[in-house]
Amino acid sequence: MERFISFCKWLLDQGADGLAVFGTTSEGNSMSPDERIELLDTLIAAGVPPEKLMPGTGACALTDSAKLAAHAAGKGCGGVLMLPPFYYKDVNDEGIFAFVSEVIQRVGSGDLRIYLYHIPPIAQVSFNPDLIERLINAYAKTVVGIKDSSGKWANTEMLLKQFPGFGVFVGSESFLLDTLRGGGSGCISATANVNAAAIKNLFLNWRSAGAEDLQQQIARIRKTIEAYPLIASLKFTIAHFFNDPAWRQVRPPLRMFPEQQQQKLLAELAQLNFSVSFSSSSMDR
Amino acid sequence: MERFISFCKWLLDQGADGLAVFGTTSEGNSMSPDERIELLDTLIAAGVPPEKLMPGTGACALTDSAKLAAHAAGKGCGGVLMLPPFYYKDVNDEGIFAFVSEVIQRVGSGDLRIYLYHIPPIAQVSFNPDLIERLINAYAKTVVGIKDSSGKWANTEMLLKQFPGFGVFVGSESFLLDTLRGGGSGCISATANVNAAAIKNLFLNWRSAGAEDLQQQIARIRKTIEAYPLIASLKFTIAHFFNDPAWRQVRPPLRMFPEQQQQKLLAELAQLNFSVSFSSSSMDR
Repeated sequence: MERFISFCKWLLDQGADGLAVFGTTSEGNSMSPDERIELLDTLIAAGVPPEKLMPGTGACALTDSAKLAAHAAGKGCGGVLMLPPFYYKDVNDEGIFAFVSEVIQRVGSGDLRIYLYHIPPIAQVSFNPDLIERLINAYAKTVVGIKDSSGKWANTEMLLKQFPGFGVFVGSESFLLDTLRGGGSGCISATANVNAAAIKNLFLNWRSAGAEDLQQQIARIRKTIEAYPLIASLKFTIAHFFNDPAWRQVRPPLRMFPEQQQQKLLAELAQLNFSVSFSSSSMDR
Repeated sequence: MERFISFCKWLLDQGADGLAVFGTTSEGNSMSPDERIELLDTLIAAGVPPEKLMPGTGACALTDSAKLAAHAAGKGCGGVLMLPPFYYKDVNDEGIFAFVSEVIQRVGSGDLRIYLYHIPPIAQVSFNPDLIERLINAYAKTVVGIKDSSGKWANTEMLLKQFPGFGVFVGSESFLLDTLRGGGSGCISATANVNAAAIKNLFLNWRSAGAEDLQQQIARIRKTIEAYPLIASLKFTIAHFFNDPAWRQVRPPLRMFPEQQQQKLLAELAQLNFSVSFSSSSMDR
């Protein structure tokens, strides 16, 4: 719990504009709704500004999704990151629309801001363009953006063109420059957990002459880490640079980063002159 | 709630030996853990014998799965039907083993009986033979069987050969006769919700001369209903024969059986001389 709080504060210090807690890298779906609610409350009580938080409401049951969304909206969170219901695979747009609609109606709050979480490689169930259009038409003030973790630039490009004004966040910083050039909002990325400062630097300087170089640098780091099982390799990287082995821990069904790959990953990161430093000022806050 | 209780009692009257409530057809994963716990308690309080119940513990969070399993074991349920954690798709056997192990340890009860729920078309994550063997070796008294909803007879056949003594239930009554001949325990099937009596009849008479005919009859009914979206068509069938339109209801992301297909399904069922009658004796209980 203490580690989680310090880490969130450190990420904000590094320049993160917000934190999408309880997404895929956070292992949000490996926590019960009540565990997520308790963690969110603790985080806010510890001084993390709720408007910077976009907690995941991932759940197969609309009652769980509504409970999490209502709690987040009630706490003043900037938004929620909403997975489609992902148990049944053979569902149609109408069914997912009904799910999101019923969550919105159950929450019944003008403060709710939903960012759709499109991550077909994992959820299998998708937010496709027809469905997104229907949701925006019905709930323009509530359904305000999307995290596109399809891994396909063509999909992000389509979203940027088809839905101007919609908050499009790409799921990998490797596409950040293209996303910003296309009018997108930014990125919400797993690897931002270890490289937030450099990513923020590109975000602030994307119109500068050096933007392409900045993009290539952060893409190289991303590529190196995502060549391994991403969540475990990120937690190992944090454990290593923070000198805190407890950070290696993941919850089943995920497994810790294998020992035999550790030196290889560290060598590759060293070759990129990559390191992370956890300032003591953050730790003491 | 009243409908659910009456229906469960009716299924037992029809000859069902047990009820796997909160599986896929039950839309178990569309209910929060607390909703499932409340329904289970109500069912038992209404007089359904807990030893005949095998509630689903499907969850992506081991804390939820453990909570549901502990509750079921504490109530004296005959077993639980356990999905593997199904959010992350790229998980290995070791991770699923760790998940099941940690659930067993958290429950910490000698009364827990786990039936693995193998349904790769929906969960995507599988209980494969190496993993099953490892679980049986580690927890022989707890991990006692499997519901094989792979839809592939070759898989059920492999399970029967490789794990003699393990309680193998096939997920479709179309394979019931073969399963019983191979030493299996029976079937746990979606379509048993409308055809339990005929399925039980084959179960009791599988060694008789007429067994092949009985098998063909129930397989025809199954085939007719599963040609449609299975869960919605089953609920429509029940609504129709029970003359109770509320039974058509499903929870998003599922959608009700489409009106334009209703007459076609009913005509097909009529051609098979299929009907369901909900005896008033069950209703009054």
